[in-house]
Amino acid sequence: MTTARGSTREAIVTAALDLFRERGFEGTTMRAVAERAGVSVGNAYYYFSSKDELVQGFYDQLVAEHRALALPGLAERTDLADRLGATLHAWVTVAEPYREFAGRFFAVAAQPDNPLSPFSPETGPARAAAVDLYREVLAGARVEPDPELARELPELLWLQHLGVVLFWVHDRSDGAARTRMLVDRTAPIVARLVRLSRLPVLRPLGRQVVDLVRLLRG
Amino acid sequence: MTTARGSTREAIVTAALDLFRERGFEGTTMRAVAERAGVSVGNAYYYFSSKDELVQGFYDQLVAEHRALALPGLAERTDLADRLGATLHAWVTVAEPYREFAGRFFAVAAQPDNPLSPFSPETGPARAAAVDLYREVLAGARVEPDPELARELPELLWLQHLGVVLFWVHDRSDGAARTRMLVDRTAPIVARLVRLSRLPVLRPLGRQVVDLVRLLRG
Repeated sequence: MTTARGSTREAIVTAALDLFRERGFEGTTMRAVAERAGVSVGNAYYYFSSKDELVQGFYDQLVAEHRALALPGLAERTDLADRLGATLHAWVTVAEPYREFAGRFFAVAAQPDNPLSPFSPETGPARAAAVDLYREVLAGARVEPDPELARELPELLWLQHLGVVLFWVHDRSDGAARTRMLVDRTAPIVARLVRLSRLPVLRPLGRQVVDLVRLLRG
Repeated sequence: MTTARGSTREAIVTAALDLFRERGFEGTTMRAVAERAGVSVGNAYYYFSSKDELVQGFYDQLVAEHRALALPGLAERTDLADRLGATLHAWVTVAEPYREFAGRFFAVAAQPDNPLSPFSPETGPARAAAVDLYREVLAGARVEPDPELARELPELLWLQHLGVVLFWVHDRSDGAARTRMLVDRTAPIVARLVRLSRLPVLRPLGRQVVDLVRLLRG
């Protein structure tokens, strides 16, 4: 991704994000993006066939940056609550420059059937990469959840991540302080639930959650 | 609410919803709403000073209809999972005619700081009425949750209700079948968590959740 090709691609995404911030998503044209990135319009279209694809490129870039920032923190932590917290804080740090844009963009992306929604087929690759990161969060933790639940946990943790994103989009506090507080408080709750999932009294609950996730995935 | 005053108010809200469906929220004027409702523009403004207030009127009406449909079902159920399920199904039934409108309207209402968001000061009365219904759902159930948690439970159940609404807005299945499946699956999970909240092993979890809710309320 750091080849010349990768950097042209990144330059186009960066230019697009600058323009989305300045003029909004609707008010930005591919021509303006190409101009800002210093490439020809044909070259911009070579990388991204539409504005929607540009946003997919942004998603991919955000996931990659998130991963790069989270991994060093994960290397030095084995407690699940700490690992979850570090991963979510890394996301807030990486996403913070886009919070205002996200607030306005959310109205587009959250619409049913929009290709930019986190559940669409088009965002599949970015979603898979994000779920993978949570798979690593679990793999390096000293924790043995109920085995049936364990299979669905990376996806469940990604859903929790989406909940944090939803909160963050609406968070108007300085430096996303309220989101960071939410992270500090929810990571231990989730870690405790995972740890307790092996208890006989809670195992049926875990199975109900697993059934639900599988049914919804269809 | 069934006085002449009440019915003029309802007629205006009904006319507004018809027009929102036909022309969208942005494309609807107070003049057109008054015309459709068969009242003077001045009369429409007497009840609602803006389109936002009309939507608040819609929220109030939806909560009242939800309550009216849910109560008979609650009268014949004592199991918490059944009571939760019946209440959520009643909401889906009442809201179903507005699902398509809600999908497009969601983009407006979900924006940060919008007075039509479910967390805004303006929607306070509709929110309080909805939380009250969940207070009754709990009061009539054979269940004794952890007392500390019990105080926050009506609000927590309303948050779960919002999660169902968020899913429903994105649900494209016939008759909201997927939302109804979600309700059938989540009501027993939530009821089980409430029931287990008294167990010593789970009590700290309940306290963590209570602390979080109180912190977020600020």
